[in-house]
Amino acid sequence: MTTHIDDAQKKLGSVIRERRRAAGISQEAFATEVGIHRTYIGAVERGERNVSLANILRIATALNVSAAQLFNEAGL
Amino acid sequence: MTTHIDDAQKKLGSVIRERRRAAGISQEAFATEVGIHRTYIGAVERGERNVSLANILRIATALNVSAAQLFNEAGL
Repeated sequence: MTTHIDDAQKKLGSVIRERRRAAGISQEAFATEVGIHRTYIGAVERGERNVSLANILRIATALNVSAAQLFNEAGL
Repeated sequence: MTTHIDDAQKKLGSVIRERRRAAGISQEAFATEVGIHRTYIGAVERGERNVSLANILRIATALNVSAAQLFNEAGL
């Protein structure tokens, strides 16, 4: 189960990183937009955080996309 | 922001409760299936928990549905 969850975190993190980069936003600017620390965003993008619903929704809002779309792109 | 997140928790919790009931599973049996405590599942269904990615995925797996589908049905 741990491996599975780690894998899911990595998939979601990759989708977030790809969308942030595609939008031309730096990790620092994105962190300010989302309202969470840059090092936390970096860890989320690397799949190192078991991110909460609230932060998933804040990230999705900052990327102008629905949370459903992020999960869909991550294959989750 | 707090209100918005609370509202999102309630929407996702309602979708989880509806799907669990539609599957004819009691909250207690569902908690055992998911591997988290019944009182926690109850709180998630009432929108009282800022549920983590790991638990969202465990709940989705127990409901035989993707996380993307749960978010989609919740309008998130």
